[in-house]
Amino acid sequence: MDERSWPRNAWYVACRPADVEDAPLGRTVCGERVVFFRDADRRVAALEDFCPHRGAALSLGRVCDGELTCGYHGLTMGRDGRAVRMPGQRVEAFPAIRAFPVLERYGFVWIWPGDPALADPAALPHLPWAESDDWAYDGGLFHMACDYRLMIDNLMDLTHETYVHASTIGQREIDEAPVTTEVRGHEVITSRHMQDILAPPFWRMGLRGAGLPEDARVDRWQVCRFSLPSHVMIEVGVALAGRGGYDAAPEHKASSIVVDFMTPETETSHWYFWGMARNFAPGDPDLTRQIKEGQHKIFSEDRAVLERQQDNLRRHPDRKLLRLNIDAGGARSRLMIERALRAEGLAEQRATTRADADPEIAQSVE
Amino acid sequence: MDERSWPRNAWYVACRPADVEDAPLGRTVCGERVVFFRDADRRVAALEDFCPHRGAALSLGRVCDGELTCGYHGLTMGRDGRAVRMPGQRVEAFPAIRAFPVLERYGFVWIWPGDPALADPAALPHLPWAESDDWAYDGGLFHMACDYRLMIDNLMDLTHETYVHASTIGQREIDEAPVTTEVRGHEVITSRHMQDILAPPFWRMGLRGAGLPEDARVDRWQVCRFSLPSHVMIEVGVALAGRGGYDAAPEHKASSIVVDFMTPETETSHWYFWGMARNFAPGDPDLTRQIKEGQHKIFSEDRAVLERQQDNLRRHPDRKLLRLNIDAGGARSRLMIERALRAEGLAEQRATTRADADPEIAQSVE
Amino acid sequence: MDERSWPRNAWYVACRPADVEDAPLGRTVCGERVVFFRDADRRVAALEDFCPHRGAALSLGRVCDGELTCGYHGLTMGRDGRAVRMPGQRVEAFPAIRAFPVLERYGFVWIWPGDPALADPAALPHLPWAESDDWAYDGGLFHMACDYRLMIDNLMDLTHETYVHASTIGQREIDEAPVTTEVRGHEVITSRHMQDILAPPFWRMGLRGAGLPEDARVDRWQVCRFSLPSHVMIEVGVALAGRGGYDAAPEHKASSIVVDFMTPETETSHWYFWGMARNFAPGDPDLTRQIKEGQHKIFSEDRAVLERQQDNLRRHPDRKLLRLNIDAGGARSRLMIERALRAEGLAEQRATTRADADPEIAQSVE
Repeated sequence: MDERSWPRNAWYVACRPADVEDAPLGRTVCGERVVFFRDADRRVAALEDFCPHRGAALSLGRVCDGELTCGYHGLTMGRDGRAVRMPGQRVEAFPAIRAFPVLERYGFVWIWPGDPALADPAALPHLPWAESDDWAYDGGLFHMACDYRLMIDNLMDLTHETYVHASTIGQREIDEAPVTTEVRGHEVITSRHMQDILAPPFWRMGLRGAGLPEDARVDRWQVCRFSLPSHVMIEVGVALAGRGGYDAAPEHKASSIVVDFMTPETETSHWYFWGMARNFAPGDPDLTRQIKEGQHKIFSEDRAVLERQQDNLRRHPDRKLLRLNIDAGGARSRLMIERALRAEGLAEQRATTRADADPEIAQSVE
Repeated sequence: MDERSWPRNAWYVACRPADVEDAPLGRTVCGERVVFFRDADRRVAALEDFCPHRGAALSLGRVCDGELTCGYHGLTMGRDGRAVRMPGQRVEAFPAIRAFPVLERYGFVWIWPGDPALADPAALPHLPWAESDDWAYDGGLFHMACDYRLMIDNLMDLTHETYVHASTIGQREIDEAPVTTEVRGHEVITSRHMQDILAPPFWRMGLRGAGLPEDARVDRWQVCRFSLPSHVMIEVGVALAGRGGYDAAPEHKASSIVVDFMTPETETSHWYFWGMARNFAPGDPDLTRQIKEGQHKIFSEDRAVLERQQDNLRRHPDRKLLRLNIDAGGARSRLMIERALRAEGLAEQRATTRADADPEIAQSVE
Repeated sequence: MDERSWPRNAWYVACRPADVEDAPLGRTVCGERVVFFRDADRRVAALEDFCPHRGAALSLGRVCDGELTCGYHGLTMGRDGRAVRMPGQRVEAFPAIRAFPVLERYGFVWIWPGDPALADPAALPHLPWAESDDWAYDGGLFHMACDYRLMIDNLMDLTHETYVHASTIGQREIDEAPVTTEVRGHEVITSRHMQDILAPPFWRMGLRGAGLPEDARVDRWQVCRFSLPSHVMIEVGVALAGRGGYDAAPEHKASSIVVDFMTPETETSHWYFWGMARNFAPGDPDLTRQIKEGQHKIFSEDRAVLERQQDNLRRHPDRKLLRLNIDAGGARSRLMIERALRAEGLAEQRATTRADADPEIAQSVE
């Protein structure tokens, strides 16, 4: 039985456009070794990273005039996975290799590891911040030695900021503010609002960047939105206290979106594309750099915690974990993943994903 | 079937007191991941390193006012393995995690990995040198990639000094002196006495430290004492020749105890706590440092040999080894361990531990 | 069932003579851990790297007066695998360990991992270049993380030079010249001849070294000769165009032999002894050094390709590969290996070695 834990018929972020320019890029995505390259029209193509001749890695080859030539014996492959030519050989009968649907949009390259016939560009998430001059975006990539769902758990419950990120975005008040989780359409949404507090260091920087007083009392919010297969967009921000919080007018707040794409590599590792989109001071490259450095530090802290957690769970696969109200965001997201897997004919049987019977969650979600 | 090779109902050295001061310490001991920390009374506590909430490693958390708070979501644990509090949660029904009996004594932290009801402080070894101002002690810790019993074999037969430690404590005369092994009470004792020889480099240093002429002819002894579960204390020393050797008056000799605690980590690795206690020149820190450096070098040599031996045995698990008279100390110690395992309901079946049928050993032990 | 993929009754290169001078050398060859040392007559000996006393690695021991003494407890072994002496012990009844037939010749140490009774010095390959002052030789050793047969495939089809070694010995014309493969006696021979071309960088150096104009038009040849168990000698060279190519008189050509001995370590790794023997300017040490550096670079490129290929094949063990005319050299060589394995009572069953049914190969070989 196929035991993968990720839906296949979905768009995943594979890389940033700059990662695949002149040289091919080899990367394992959703358990498949894939080679990415640009064809003659500069469109990204994605093939199995396996030369049909002798099994060499095509990603060690060369791209010339938009064709990928194997670096071992010179078999040239087209973007459709069919052999184009090879010196001294007739290649018509060569077996084709898998070609993956791939799209470049919103500053990312997206891959569809499932059935190509189902690959629908309309199924891409809509990311307006990525196409507007009012917004600035930058981010990075981490290889994480843990199940991608542990990162979803992590992001759908920001209680951990108090502990993991004490020196940057954590603060006592997060713990004390109630959290609500709901499923709305295709999203799982976990929200937390804090009133009349002082901003933590990261947001003091945000206030400065937005031209607001960094030591003002503020209302702060975190709205985490999960959508399939593994995207988490977190609206975060602070507004001068009493101006409406999340709904305050733009001039009274500094807000942004924490952008998180988790792309499974194996069952116990994933590619974590992280970044921040902000709509204040979008033309300030120093601020962009500062934020990126701040996020790099924050997600490094997460990495240490999650990789050790993965290791603990591997040693105790049957151990029952707690499911608290703060875990509802992750639990509901996992349920959504599980339904998608079931729709693909897979049944996940890990106890940790059976949240249906959990009354505490049943209460906190619709 | 449980296939561990170490008794569980016993005290093992887990760490030095300084290893667990303000921050928690995570260490795998006897196959268990354990977190050590100090409670409000500064007493060391030991819990499973597994947060009952989501499986995070508690050792990545923080200790505050003698309580251990998980670094992920802030669950605070008490020394009894029960949840104390968590922001926004009622923790009374949270499942407890294992708490291990733990003691701090003789300059070490001791853990009892077995049944807590059987943990008896009186079962600690008696180490008078650790509580007397007439003695100085220092030592170190090595992680060894080999079965802890290979180190017991090594220490219970010092013939190897001639070869492994040729430049420090080895000398031809060790080989030539007869060795005797006996079981006395709860100890296996292997003894070797050399008469009227020149001291090797390490003991020339010892003689100098004791105010004796380093180039004098001496009588030298090695009395190795194994006791359960895995302690080896080796009385070593030199006395001016003809003054009674081991029984010579203090002013004619330099003697000390090589202290060895082997704490299993996995079946093929262990923590090796090594050191030396001496009752000459105890107030000389330079000598203490010199001895420690010497031991560091010596045990590094052992490490190289034992780790390769482990590797060879792993590749040839069924190969029969020789059991010579010089191996009797290790063989008798392994028998004692095997009896302890049997008393815990385990039967070790490795051929290498069946020494009963070996006539050579039968002769050399009582 | 024994599943090794290499014949045992054959001579393999184990090391260079300089690798085993005063200290013993431990190396895994054909799945066996072996210790090499020189006896009192300076003849190389080879034993299992496993002390019959307690399983220590003999290669960590010392050689004294042509005897190998274990570094743990001082058991001294003779070149026949029998214990010679041990302090305080009677060693007559000690079990012997395996001794391997071993020869030193042609600048290499050769080992016979199979039945010693069958070890015939006459079965060594004949390497006249290694014993003539008209030739110069130098080379190196790489540890390769791939099946030794992938390297044979690689060497028996030099089409890859165009792609893997584009900047040194590769050139378009290799692709375009037809390749022929034949089995002649105990050799598989793959030949390619290129007429009236410009020499690639490596051979421009060769022409200069031979006192010929480096920018002259040349005929170039590659004649790859495989022989059991895993030797590939490649005659390569260039002659001034129209002077007879391969058969040109010595003063019109620069030619040499690429020397390749692949010695299996495990099923997925091998020792690759590479080098070049040349009969032009043999007394020019600068040229020798330049060639060695060039080969080092070239074979490093092969290493990257083959290790990734091994990894791909491991992930897709059942995937069918193509067998083209350019692969005939490797395919015929694998057949020869398979016959040798069958003669030793082993049947290789990997699909990749069943070339009999391949009509394309059937055409291109006798």
